[in-house]
Amino acid sequence: MAEKKTRKYMLPEDQIPEAFYNLAADLPVALPPVLHPGTGMPIGPDDLAPLFPMALIAQEVSTEREIEIPEPVRDAYRMYRPSPLIRARGLERALDTPARIYYKYEGVSPAGSHKTNTAIAQAFYNREEGIRRLSTETGAGQWGSALAMACAFFGMVCEVYMVRVSYNQKPYRRGLMEAYGASVYPSPSDRTHAGREILADDPDSPGSLGIAISEAVEVAASQDDVKYSLGSVLNHVLLHQTVIGLEALKQFDMAEDYPDLIVGATGGGSNFSGMAFPFIGRMLRGEQDVNMLAVEPTACPTLTRGPYAYDYGDTARMTPLVKMHTLGHSFVPVGIHAGGLRYHGMAPMVSHLLQLGIIDAVAVQQLDTFSAGVQFARTEGIIPAPESNHAVAVAITEALRCKESGESRAILFNLSGHGHFDIQAYIDYHAGKLVNYQYPEEEIAMALAGLPTVNAVVGD
Amino acid sequence: MAEKKTRKYMLPEDQIPEAFYNLAADLPVALPPVLHPGTGMPIGPDDLAPLFPMALIAQEVSTEREIEIPEPVRDAYRMYRPSPLIRARGLERALDTPARIYYKYEGVSPAGSHKTNTAIAQAFYNREEGIRRLSTETGAGQWGSALAMACAFFGMVCEVYMVRVSYNQKPYRRGLMEAYGASVYPSPSDRTHAGREILADDPDSPGSLGIAISEAVEVAASQDDVKYSLGSVLNHVLLHQTVIGLEALKQFDMAEDYPDLIVGATGGGSNFSGMAFPFIGRMLRGEQDVNMLAVEPTACPTLTRGPYAYDYGDTARMTPLVKMHTLGHSFVPVGIHAGGLRYHGMAPMVSHLLQLGIIDAVAVQQLDTFSAGVQFARTEGIIPAPESNHAVAVAITEALRCKESGESRAILFNLSGHGHFDIQAYIDYHAGKLVNYQYPEEEIAMALAGLPTVNAVVGD
Repeated sequence: MAEKKTRKYMLPEDQIPEAFYNLAADLPVALPPVLHPGTGMPIGPDDLAPLFPMALIAQEVSTEREIEIPEPVRDAYRMYRPSPLIRARGLERALDTPARIYYKYEGVSPAGSHKTNTAIAQAFYNREEGIRRLSTETGAGQWGSALAMACAFFGMVCEVYMVRVSYNQKPYRRGLMEAYGASVYPSPSDRTHAGREILADDPDSPGSLGIAISEAVEVAASQDDVKYSLGSVLNHVLLHQTVIGLEALKQFDMAEDYPDLIVGATGGGSNFSGMAFPFIGRMLRGEQDVNMLAVEPTACPTLTRGPYAYDYGDTARMTPLVKMHTLGHSFVPVGIHAGGLRYHGMAPMVSHLLQLGIIDAVAVQQLDTFSAGVQFARTEGIIPAPESNHAVAVAITEALRCKESGESRAILFNLSGHGHFDIQAYIDYHAGKLVNYQYPEEEIAMALAGLPTVNAVVGD
Repeated sequence: MAEKKTRKYMLPEDQIPEAFYNLAADLPVALPPVLHPGTGMPIGPDDLAPLFPMALIAQEVSTEREIEIPEPVRDAYRMYRPSPLIRARGLERALDTPARIYYKYEGVSPAGSHKTNTAIAQAFYNREEGIRRLSTETGAGQWGSALAMACAFFGMVCEVYMVRVSYNQKPYRRGLMEAYGASVYPSPSDRTHAGREILADDPDSPGSLGIAISEAVEVAASQDDVKYSLGSVLNHVLLHQTVIGLEALKQFDMAEDYPDLIVGATGGGSNFSGMAFPFIGRMLRGEQDVNMLAVEPTACPTLTRGPYAYDYGDTARMTPLVKMHTLGHSFVPVGIHAGGLRYHGMAPMVSHLLQLGIIDAVAVQQLDTFSAGVQFARTEGIIPAPESNHAVAVAITEALRCKESGESRAILFNLSGHGHFDIQAYIDYHAGKLVNYQYPEEEIAMALAGLPTVNAVVGD
């Protein structure tokens, strides 16, 4: 009886994973190579050296199954990890479903989302190689906040290029980063060549993630003592997030249960991957099956409507070419509130899994995600980030499907962050100001027309 | 070695306390009686019945040491309790102090502060007695958010009168309450006699906590199916908060340590009491000594500069008279950012302890509290609520004193909430817009001149 009421499965600090899990070790087919934007040939570690420390470049291409987590990183994780695995008993009761709904809550991170898992690791590895300054970009602000906190922790300087429209609309996200000691600049800025060029054309440019990336990359590439840091997409970022799923595996042991379905919101892919990869690894090694569903907004339907093709990671075409599901690097998604999911591409590793049929993907409408988020807040207490609401919405749909069929499935999702800095979105939702969006075919086709010619060469 | 690195002391869910601790059972001298504002005679339970359910009135006057926590309340606590006890290793390192600094972190509550501990209990006891609607007031918004969440959890309607200036300045706090399903009205409102009277005089009135209390009390007193709910000051509110200290006692057992000094921010008194009372009880029962320091803002120096006298709880003189440290019910503190500490009085129980010499009190300046909060955020990750910064500031001062003397004291404070909804305060701090404040003697004397005549009668 007492056991039936358990809400949170908590692990002691010494159960923080000792190694990241690297899915590359268990993939049935290796990832396609990353190509040089100029030559179209596979790139090597040296091509990335101006931007990243060697330890992270090594992780990017590693096929070792376990990559040890350095003790200073584990020590910083102790600030908030292990995060709880929570049985959503309030939500289950409200839905009157036989489904067992679990969520891992990464909003316990002081910066408010799962992003600190990789921010701490990236800051550490850079610091180890003597780097004292990191540059990065941020849109919605979750990533910038996480890196600002991590840099404060390791005594590093953090320079954040924040999309100008967000810089103006979200002064509290900026205030948080500045409280952590970071310097935050509205992008486009006059601090970089890329920024000045944009401003010369349009002094009132609202900016974009693409421009901000260009500025942050330029700063790192042009200064010896600065490296660049990215909050999603890359293999090493996904790798760091696997602490989420590794902890969840132990917590399901405590609960004497196992998920039938894992649901995850996907923008760049690191949130979904962090939870799913350790479970996928078990499946690929023949240990235990699980279904996986990546959830994206209809306003940025990368996995569900974008082809699997080589494309640039940024609008300005400064990055290498990676094979991924993409809507084209020139695609600019409409301004939904889930800013963290507004990325034209998708992590190559996640794209690869979809291509191999190992995971499924679905797109959901904005209004459904907020309706789910409100129901979640009223039954579970936590008000989710708009990004996380995408997972909540699908978890609810699946739980209601269980109610219809009478099945008692275990559904797991990662509640990647809280919505404390996104309350305006909830206010707009309640005021009836939010809308749904479905791109017409022509619009998608137009964006895809700009895909690089390398795809013709290598046969896509 | 591994043990030395422990940051968080976590209790499993089944260690949520089974009973609240009632300090009244261990007090060497009983509290002075509460007086009827009309007759000046001690009031009885019936006088409070229009406002509160009988269970809470009974708790208000109980001298039983332990008051059982009903299972539905414990179940709701499982959403976020037990809260962690955290060793502030990052802060200790930065201060280079031999002191051991511990903080209990109540910001893990989904509503963001310790206020949910009593909100959940109050909602439950009201619901048990058939009440479906609660009215309350809120200033900074922490209390309103907590009660809104608790009402959502128990399927109740919540009506919040929010000081108009805060209603306009803090739309996100309001948005959070509305997401939980509460109705939030700017006070003064046209929904009550009290509100309409103020508006007739001054249509642009910015409101005050005193006015908002009058509105919320009027709604409860004038409608059979509505009760009133208060977030601090009263004995039963302090009682519910003792879950904080009770958990901390168990966590210090885990840490094989015991606090030499407990520091707590005091506004109405419930945060300080929640942590301190269980430790004070042990001291009063001769089990173990501890020093206790209540911290208040110089901008509202109730304990340090107010006399111990009978006074009203609200500006409009609708409440009973309680004996407390007070600056006079007409005192309006300057607009510091720690809105939760801007109350003219202090919990009778806390005032009584100061009077008996069981606790000490100190006032700190606003700039020192924010400087401490920023240092805390950069070393511990969490950005504290401005109220909590008062405790952080004194903990740092005491830790630096240890550094000077070479003493290794254990310092404990309750980090009552996070500052996610108070980032504007940090922005203002960094912009140099915040100031210190020290009231001239004449100003205090003027406010005190309005103390009720009952003090002359009973000899104060």
